[in-house]
Amino acid sequence: MTNEEFRNFGHNMVDWMADYFQQIESLPVKAQVEPGEIYQQLPELPPEEAESFSQIFRDFQTKILKGITHWQHPNFFAYFPANNSYPSILGEMLTATLGAQCMIWETSPAAAELEQKVMEWMKQMMGLPAEFTGVIQDTASTATLCALLTARESATDFQSNKSGLDSKTKFTVYCSTQTHSSIDKAIKIAGIGSDQLRKIPVDRDFAMRPDALEKEIQTDIALGFHPLCVVASIGTTSSTAIDPVKKIGEICQKHRLWLHVDGAYAGTAMLLPEKRWIIEGLELADSYVFNPHKWMFTNFDCSAYYVKDESKLIRTFEILPEYLKTQVDKQVNNYRDWGIQLGRRFRALKLWFVIRSFGVKGLQKKIRHHIELSHYFLEAIQKHPEVELLAPTPLNLVCFRLKPSQLSSEEALTRLNATLMQKMNASGKVYLTHTKLNGIYTLRVAIGQTHVQKENVDQLLNLLWKTYEEIKSSLKLG
Amino acid sequence: MTNEEFRNFGHNMVDWMADYFQQIESLPVKAQVEPGEIYQQLPELPPEEAESFSQIFRDFQTKILKGITHWQHPNFFAYFPANNSYPSILGEMLTATLGAQCMIWETSPAAAELEQKVMEWMKQMMGLPAEFTGVIQDTASTATLCALLTARESATDFQSNKSGLDSKTKFTVYCSTQTHSSIDKAIKIAGIGSDQLRKIPVDRDFAMRPDALEKEIQTDIALGFHPLCVVASIGTTSSTAIDPVKKIGEICQKHRLWLHVDGAYAGTAMLLPEKRWIIEGLELADSYVFNPHKWMFTNFDCSAYYVKDESKLIRTFEILPEYLKTQVDKQVNNYRDWGIQLGRRFRALKLWFVIRSFGVKGLQKKIRHHIELSHYFLEAIQKHPEVELLAPTPLNLVCFRLKPSQLSSEEALTRLNATLMQKMNASGKVYLTHTKLNGIYTLRVAIGQTHVQKENVDQLLNLLWKTYEEIKSSLKLG
Repeated sequence: MTNEEFRNFGHNMVDWMADYFQQIESLPVKAQVEPGEIYQQLPELPPEEAESFSQIFRDFQTKILKGITHWQHPNFFAYFPANNSYPSILGEMLTATLGAQCMIWETSPAAAELEQKVMEWMKQMMGLPAEFTGVIQDTASTATLCALLTARESATDFQSNKSGLDSKTKFTVYCSTQTHSSIDKAIKIAGIGSDQLRKIPVDRDFAMRPDALEKEIQTDIALGFHPLCVVASIGTTSSTAIDPVKKIGEICQKHRLWLHVDGAYAGTAMLLPEKRWIIEGLELADSYVFNPHKWMFTNFDCSAYYVKDESKLIRTFEILPEYLKTQVDKQVNNYRDWGIQLGRRFRALKLWFVIRSFGVKGLQKKIRHHIELSHYFLEAIQKHPEVELLAPTPLNLVCFRLKPSQLSSEEALTRLNATLMQKMNASGKVYLTHTKLNGIYTLRVAIGQTHVQKENVDQLLNLLWKTYEEIKSSLKLG
Repeated sequence: MTNEEFRNFGHNMVDWMADYFQQIESLPVKAQVEPGEIYQQLPELPPEEAESFSQIFRDFQTKILKGITHWQHPNFFAYFPANNSYPSILGEMLTATLGAQCMIWETSPAAAELEQKVMEWMKQMMGLPAEFTGVIQDTASTATLCALLTARESATDFQSNKSGLDSKTKFTVYCSTQTHSSIDKAIKIAGIGSDQLRKIPVDRDFAMRPDALEKEIQTDIALGFHPLCVVASIGTTSSTAIDPVKKIGEICQKHRLWLHVDGAYAGTAMLLPEKRWIIEGLELADSYVFNPHKWMFTNFDCSAYYVKDESKLIRTFEILPEYLKTQVDKQVNNYRDWGIQLGRRFRALKLWFVIRSFGVKGLQKKIRHHIELSHYFLEAIQKHPEVELLAPTPLNLVCFRLKPSQLSSEEALTRLNATLMQKMNASGKVYLTHTKLNGIYTLRVAIGQTHVQKENVDQLLNLLWKTYEEIKSSLKLG
């Protein structure tokens, strides 16, 4: 491809991209394909000769696109959103073009220094503790693994890295029964083992019970274990439950445990002063993560990881082979030593574009709007006599199920709600997902897509009632 | 930003991007800024109000760009390249636009199935063992960590994940003295500890000595250690030395060790049948990684990780919380279980664009051209009486130093060559980096940037001789 062809195809692509967002509501939210359907259309052998880009792009449109679930569709209510936005996409275009490898300062000074700056900006925007220092990671899974490893190394005076984990020191880690699966993954990777993960009971709002945490830690100490770390969640995946950070932090201080706070999704709400009660006590935490790539309109991947003492993080990960030494190593942030990967993309750029394009007030307005829409949805379903709410809605996730008076067995209710969700998703008009809360099959509706409006929530409501009535009448429950 | 504004700015951006590549040779390769210079220009506080994108983009051009080291400049000879290409950038534009989260099949079926297909294509294109199964990781650091963790779990019947590492089982890991720093990082993360990493001596070509490996394994067994894994490198970072995979593989088979082969950079050369002697014996490996994001014109991040038995990989990492369960879990590849991160970008798209746009022959032609240019450079410097070659050039990396007859102390030679490199880099005309081989300060010239041509190599040669003569005359050595 010549430079001139690139320019032409680039312009075509931009038009396609702008059209995509204009027409996205005409596409099915969830891909309506069967397993293997996309794969079977693709040739078995790679092409020997160059193919024209027009043909490749046509194939993208005809063969690939139908297998894409449209995460940027305003009727995407599944999981948590993974939002992009126009300025973020423009940032990604430049990042891709520069193709700069941002492993150390010298390999891209502006990337390192812009990263430092935007991480400071976000601290200010969100009222995070002034003593925190930030670094961009790819995902919260990776950030949480970094936290656990730093806790492990701090507790062993950085000797586990050297001598290996000594299994005589029986480390234990604490999180609630609602905590994200990345903790399960991290404790395995770190060599501590999932048997040493204590899942602390929650209160009726699905928040970790500090009394139960305290008791479990004391039991472990009595049994000869070495309590290492607590992972508190602000905004659990199943229901955005908020663990009480301050109380948990005080317990961590008392027993000298590492406190990691996982705000992967809900952290963005700290843009709103009225929501900052959620992070009361965050200054007691040793590390904190939230993902601008979820609810802050910044393309995946962009996970903001903050630590109280960056020297511990660096000491956990630092390497210095000869081929990476530079003359300025003592004066700069070489972010390769702040995490697992050596190679790093220029991720600060899109975040800078987003913050400046929206402005803090613009970001706040969007987030407030999403929370309002969720309460609009919540009020609408609450009026229905057969809706059972299954968790509080502190932010913008609503957890509920339909419970017709004629059905009482849990199994039948699970079947009904699973069918309801599958039918709604199969319509292509909306996408929502499920979880289990107290063993109950629960529908989750997260209202936080960049462009979601009241009309989209109305479409969801209409489809919900219509599909529910259809199921009831097919079950002769109506 | 409205859709219409996005369209307009997108077109401006494409023109800027195409212009960037046209004018890139007028920019300094290595950013000519001091530590803190970029940071100091940026406002202390984030903007409250939205700013115009024109202003933001102007700031990018005036404040950020001068702090960027231009990895796509044809005179980039540093480290290893991290290449992009026009079709790859177009792929990234779509990936950013779709913003699809590719953690499981259901969240983007086309992404999962295209990933499976392109990984199969690359196997065929490169003559990799038919029994290998591939998955895209972000970096070779992560892939190598996955390999070590899978080795650890396989050797403990997946009990380390559960019970934690038992330090009575004293695992040892083997690599050469030349192996990449990611192995040092991975052995720490996995809880095995860097004391258990055996760095095996190399031969005069910097390749691992199988006899020394065998001896070390036997010594460890005799001392009660449990040899776990060997990491063989094809194309070390310092000098692209090629470890003898077949002989190492036979030793691994004999002692039942996991063999991981790190071809992060040089793996791309397997496109060339005449270079496949390098992977003779790769069928004895349990895992293999190479990075299309280095030398295969595909934007970072895109690391190709292959395993012989994917069930072991999956068993090492699998998690299945309720909120991620789908109806098709048994029929599809849910790649969240194939590595560390849950969230994943749609990285197969750019790779598919690159393979089809270049065609296998087009990729081969580029790689062959790079190797030829390296030999052109090699021949040119060999003619100079004061050039000392410091390693073989099996591919496209040349390792050398200048050694004027008047200087004999190693210290003086280090100073001279470091000064030579710094002066050349400070000119902004080229960028090269250094390493140490046998304790000798070594200049590295990697000739593999996407658009590098003979003229660029000639510019490098001219600058080398000119700068060398200047230094000699200032030292009164001329």
